[in-house]
Amino acid sequence: MTGTPSLNSPSPTPLSLLGLGDMGTALARAWLAAGHPLTVWNRTPAKAEPLAAEGAHRAASAAEAVAAADLVVLCLLDDASVGETLQGADLRGKDLVNLTTSTPALSRARAAWAQERGARFLDGGIMAVPPMVGVPEAGGYIFYSGDAGLFDRHAKTLGAPVGARYVGADAGHAALYDVALLSAMTGMFAGVTHAFALMRAEKDVAPTEFAEPLAGWLRAMAGMIGGVAHQLESGDYTDGVVSNLAMVSTGNTTLLETAREQGVSGELLTPYMDLMRRRVEQGHGAEGLAGLVDLLRDAAAAGVR
Amino acid sequence: MTGTPSLNSPSPTPLSLLGLGDMGTALARAWLAAGHPLTVWNRTPAKAEPLAAEGAHRAASAAEAVAAADLVVLCLLDDASVGETLQGADLRGKDLVNLTTSTPALSRARAAWAQERGARFLDGGIMAVPPMVGVPEAGGYIFYSGDAGLFDRHAKTLGAPVGARYVGADAGHAALYDVALLSAMTGMFAGVTHAFALMRAEKDVAPTEFAEPLAGWLRAMAGMIGGVAHQLESGDYTDGVVSNLAMVSTGNTTLLETAREQGVSGELLTPYMDLMRRRVEQGHGAEGLAGLVDLLRDAAAAGVR
Repeated sequence: MTGTPSLNSPSPTPLSLLGLGDMGTALARAWLAAGHPLTVWNRTPAKAEPLAAEGAHRAASAAEAVAAADLVVLCLLDDASVGETLQGADLRGKDLVNLTTSTPALSRARAAWAQERGARFLDGGIMAVPPMVGVPEAGGYIFYSGDAGLFDRHAKTLGAPVGARYVGADAGHAALYDVALLSAMTGMFAGVTHAFALMRAEKDVAPTEFAEPLAGWLRAMAGMIGGVAHQLESGDYTDGVVSNLAMVSTGNTTLLETAREQGVSGELLTPYMDLMRRRVEQGHGAEGLAGLVDLLRDAAAAGVR
Repeated sequence: MTGTPSLNSPSPTPLSLLGLGDMGTALARAWLAAGHPLTVWNRTPAKAEPLAAEGAHRAASAAEAVAAADLVVLCLLDDASVGETLQGADLRGKDLVNLTTSTPALSRARAAWAQERGARFLDGGIMAVPPMVGVPEAGGYIFYSGDAGLFDRHAKTLGAPVGARYVGADAGHAALYDVALLSAMTGMFAGVTHAFALMRAEKDVAPTEFAEPLAGWLRAMAGMIGGVAHQLESGDYTDGVVSNLAMVSTGNTTLLETAREQGVSGELLTPYMDLMRRRVEQGHGAEGLAGLVDLLRDAAAAGVR
C-alpha cells in the first residue's frame, strides 16, 4: 500500500498557511515542494489560484484554514491583520506560528492573546527575501521565539523553506533579533550610500570596481563586532581597544572634509560622529565603541527622537 | 664575497621612514624584519631609540633621512606636517611615498608639490591598524595611487608590512578609497551600535550571543553591494530589485517603533530613513538603493551639511 507513513520517514506534516503575499507564496511553494499537505487562505482569493494548481488545498475562510491543520502559519500584512483574520477561528489546541512582521511588544501581546484562546504560540522574524526561500544555499533563515515545545515538534517543517533558529522562550525575541539585524543593515547601507556618493564624481572609477574592496572591507570589519560584545559583557570598555574613540573622532574630521570636497552631504554620518564626540567630551576617549550603546539609550531617555 | 646582490634574490631595498607614531613604528619593525636597511626619523627623537636597538639607522634630521635612501616613506601626523618636515630636504630624484592621512584634494596638491621639487610621488591610504602590520593573515593592506612606475618598482618593498593595492594614477584616489571605506564602516558601526542598544534591555540575551548572528547577517548583506554598483553603472535603478525603496521605507516604521519600545534613540538611523522617504515621495518607490546616492549628492548641493 502506498502512502503509508513509515517510522523512518514519516509523512511530511500537514499545515495551513494564511497570507499569500510574495513571502507567503514563496513559503507555500517550498512546503509543497517538500511534500507537505498544505491548506492556504488569502483575503484576496485569486492569490491562492496558482498554488491550488500546484497542489494546495484552498480554504474558503480563515476559520476553515485554521480548522484544516494542527499547525497554522500566519504571514499577514501586520499584527492588526492577525487579530482581524483569526476573529472567528477556533484556536484551541492549535500550534500557531506567526511570521507576520511586528515589534517585540506586539509579538508578546499576540502570544498572550493566542494562549488565552487555547493555542500554543511561536513568533518568527524572517531574515530572507522571497527569492531566497526554498534555496538553502542563499542562506536565509527565520528567527523563532516562544513555545519551545512547538518549535521542537515542528522544527523540520519550519526549516523546510529556509533555516530555522530558535532564540528563546520570550515571544518578543524573534521580532527583536529581526529588527536589530535590519537596523544594523540600515546603518551599513547608509554608510555604503555615502561611500558610493563619494566615488560618484570620479569618472574613471567604475562603481563595480569599487564595490569589491568596499564589500570586502565591511565583511572584514564585521569581525570587530565580537569585540564590542565582549566589552558590553565585561563592562570594561577599554578592553582590547586599538583605535579608541578619541582617535576615531579626530579621524572623522578627514571623513567630513573629504565629503565636502567630493560634494556629498555628511548627514548620514554626522549623528554617529556627534555621539562619539559627546562620549569623548564626557571623558571616555580611551574607550572603544561599546560606551556609545549606553549613550544612545541615554539619548532616548533624554527625549531625543 | 658576502652581501653581493644576486639576480635571483636581490637584497631588500634600503628605505627611509619619517614619522614613528604607532603606525610608523609598526611599519618600521615589519621592514626591519624583512631585512630592509632602514633609516628612521621622528620629531621626538626618543621614539627612534627602540628601533635603533633593533637595527634601524637614526637620522639626525628629516633632511638627513631623506638623503639616506632613494625610497622615502612618510607617516606623519597630517598633511601640514609633511610640508613642514620636508622643508629643508632635497627631494630631487626621490621616490616619495606618503602614507600620512589626508583628503583626496590634499593628496593631489601634495603630489604636485613633490613633482615641482623633482620627486616622484605615490600616496597611500592605510586599511589596517598597527597590530595588523607584519601579520599577513590579518588581511590589512594599503591603497596606493599616483606614479605607477614608482609603485611597480617598489611593489615588493611596499607590500612587505601589509598588502599593497594600486588604484590608479590620480594621487587623490588612495585617500578617496580609504575615506570611502572608513565612511561606510562608520555607517555600519552606527547600525551595530543601534542594534546592541536595542538588545541591551534584554537581560537574558548576552551581547556575545547576539554578536554572532549580527556579524553573520552584515557579512551576508554585504553581498548586496555589488547589486547597487551594477545599478549605478547601468543607470537602471530598478534592475534586480527585490525589496524596493517603498517596501523598505514602510518597514522602517517597525524599526523605529521597536527602538521606541526598547528605549533607544532612533537618531542614528533616521537621516537615512528620511532620505528613503524623500526618494519615494519623488516617485522612485520601485527602485533600489542606488538613487539614494544621487539624492545624497543633491542634498549637499542644496546646502544640507
